[in-house]
Amino acid sequence: MSEKHAVTYELLKTDSRTKARRGVLHTPHGDIQTPVFMPVGTQATVKAMKPEAVAGLGHEGAHIILSNTYHLYLRPGHQLIKDMGGLHKFMNWHGAILTDSGGFQVFSLGKMRKISEEGVKFSSYIDGSKHFFTPELSIEVQNALGSDIIMAFDECAPWPADRRYVQDSLNLTTRWLKRCKAAHKDIERQSLFGIMQGGTYKDLRRESARQIVDLDLPGYAIGGLSVGEPAELMYEVLDDCVDELPKDKARYLMGVGTPDYLFEGVERGIDMFDCVLPTREARHGRAMTSHGKVNIKNARYERDESPLDPECDCYVCRNYSKAYLRHLFKSEEILSSMLLSEHNLHFLVKTMEDIRKSIEEDRFPEYKRIFYDKFGQF
Amino acid sequence: MSEKHAVTYELLKTDSRTKARRGVLHTPHGDIQTPVFMPVGTQATVKAMKPEAVAGLGHEGAHIILSNTYHLYLRPGHQLIKDMGGLHKFMNWHGAILTDSGGFQVFSLGKMRKISEEGVKFSSYIDGSKHFFTPELSIEVQNALGSDIIMAFDECAPWPADRRYVQDSLNLTTRWLKRCKAAHKDIERQSLFGIMQGGTYKDLRRESARQIVDLDLPGYAIGGLSVGEPAELMYEVLDDCVDELPKDKARYLMGVGTPDYLFEGVERGIDMFDCVLPTREARHGRAMTSHGKVNIKNARYERDESPLDPECDCYVCRNYSKAYLRHLFKSEEILSSMLLSEHNLHFLVKTMEDIRKSIEEDRFPEYKRIFYDKFGQF
Repeated sequence: MSEKHAVTYELLKTDSRTKARRGVLHTPHGDIQTPVFMPVGTQATVKAMKPEAVAGLGHEGAHIILSNTYHLYLRPGHQLIKDMGGLHKFMNWHGAILTDSGGFQVFSLGKMRKISEEGVKFSSYIDGSKHFFTPELSIEVQNALGSDIIMAFDECAPWPADRRYVQDSLNLTTRWLKRCKAAHKDIERQSLFGIMQGGTYKDLRRESARQIVDLDLPGYAIGGLSVGEPAELMYEVLDDCVDELPKDKARYLMGVGTPDYLFEGVERGIDMFDCVLPTREARHGRAMTSHGKVNIKNARYERDESPLDPECDCYVCRNYSKAYLRHLFKSEEILSSMLLSEHNLHFLVKTMEDIRKSIEEDRFPEYKRIFYDKFGQF
Repeated sequence: MSEKHAVTYELLKTDSRTKARRGVLHTPHGDIQTPVFMPVGTQATVKAMKPEAVAGLGHEGAHIILSNTYHLYLRPGHQLIKDMGGLHKFMNWHGAILTDSGGFQVFSLGKMRKISEEGVKFSSYIDGSKHFFTPELSIEVQNALGSDIIMAFDECAPWPADRRYVQDSLNLTTRWLKRCKAAHKDIERQSLFGIMQGGTYKDLRRESARQIVDLDLPGYAIGGLSVGEPAELMYEVLDDCVDELPKDKARYLMGVGTPDYLFEGVERGIDMFDCVLPTREARHGRAMTSHGKVNIKNARYERDESPLDPECDCYVCRNYSKAYLRHLFKSEEILSSMLLSEHNLHFLVKTMEDIRKSIEEDRFPEYKRIFYDKFGQF
């Protein structure tokens, strides 16, 4: 084929002692330096942030965000967003966008959904209306949204789950992936990433990986982890399965975003991460700092003139005291969510910048140790 | 006395056909071009706005905001703010600040407060704790906050109220004003404004004006209007009483901020306005535009690609469609309040800039007519 994939991955350097990779993801909306943390904008907005503030995160800026097929399908509707010129224009975001397929959200509905070979029947959380999601519909929605990276519609097995269930589930995910690939036509505009499943069964993970890699897609995600299993078990699974993915394609560990998971994922060869944690924690008054978590509600900060993180140079830490941030949170002011979200996202984006630099300078393990020593318990 | 008042008013020009005035308010935190609309930051934050966004409102920026003695006294406490370096530093606002005295808020408590000659006993809306507010305490709190303009502790009579009540109330307000003046020492750092009361009784308004002007303060406010009385009655009262205030001092009409009230107030010689309306309306999905009100919830905007106000050049109108703003509001996203607040405040700040220009160019009545024709019903 002479067609060029919309999104390609370029490997720049591999760490000499770990699997950590330094690369670039080329997209229709700009180059993304990897490893990268992607802020989440579920409903076409990174919560409590103007897009310009998102673009200004860290020292280099955030250049890719994640949005959600399921939520945007239900409200305001993908056809509406398409008619308004696509998701980038609709939400005033000029960088790249990755859309989740809706698989994870639909399966999270529990009793409100029913899975069959054809797809998933579910009820809307907004108005109870009935919907039927299929791989083809997920692709149709993502085509309408116009995101740079679109995700396959998969089944995310819960943890724990028995082996037979997980085996069937990953096979279904592969059959659905083939249908997604067949449904997605314009590969020069948007790139479809496949999703590896297999729960915490290492051999099933490898089997899933082989099945999806056979389809020769421009990128691969690892789904179904960080769904309740112990961290050590997740690391073991990653140790085993990441090598099954081709070195010349991007690797995305879905829904993972605590600082320790970022370091452990990078160390095992992951390039992309996303998580709602930094903005959700922010709305609950919790900040991530280079010296660990700060719960701004805590009475000890009542008269604390120091910034959230003395080592942070973000807008929030340059301009506000913990005492003020505590006052905003206690007063239920919107600015509290705005400032804590900006700080938390900055912290992860900046940490990832520092991780990239450490890989370039072949001192990733040392940087990881320094970070862990300061951050403490996760 | 050789002491210089912290805040002084300079009259630049008076309209040839109305009482509209163009002036400058000199403050320790910069010059304020008048007439001016002051955004309200009740709890040490203009709701849903970063201070930089407030400073960037309109074409010339907002340079003075209002904050609230009563709220900040209860939470986080004035002594805490003083210890944190004062209100300007605490909230990262580099412009001027006017603090309301707490009088209006305390009187709004209804049955939860009791007035005596000495002051007002009331219960906290936060934890039910008992407090006793006096003119001296209001000044002490405002001294601690360090605002540029501090307001006298007054009694704001309700509407309607019988003549005897209003007469007694304005006399009490004057006695309290004298106590405020005696309690306020550092007049070079902060300026105390007196408040005229008198309800809708014109002769009582004039009497109140004479009493407070006798005290030779650096500025005067008109309180107790826009509390439920018909707009026409308010205009009549203003027609009659504004002339009682000295021409070389600033005149502030408290709590007034609908576009029509701004025009009518300016026409009657008012220099300063404040109102929570633009940010409160924003949080309810309502925008003010040059063509009248827009209720963003309305189904007619579902697929509307146009900005809130086609004649507005604010950040929001340059970057977002009504369809997107409607989606944000329906999805209960914080960005909805952020964007609508910024637009509404921009609209009032920019309208006031246009009013100032029209006075400079001696075409205020013409500009008022053009504005009313487009804006329609208030």
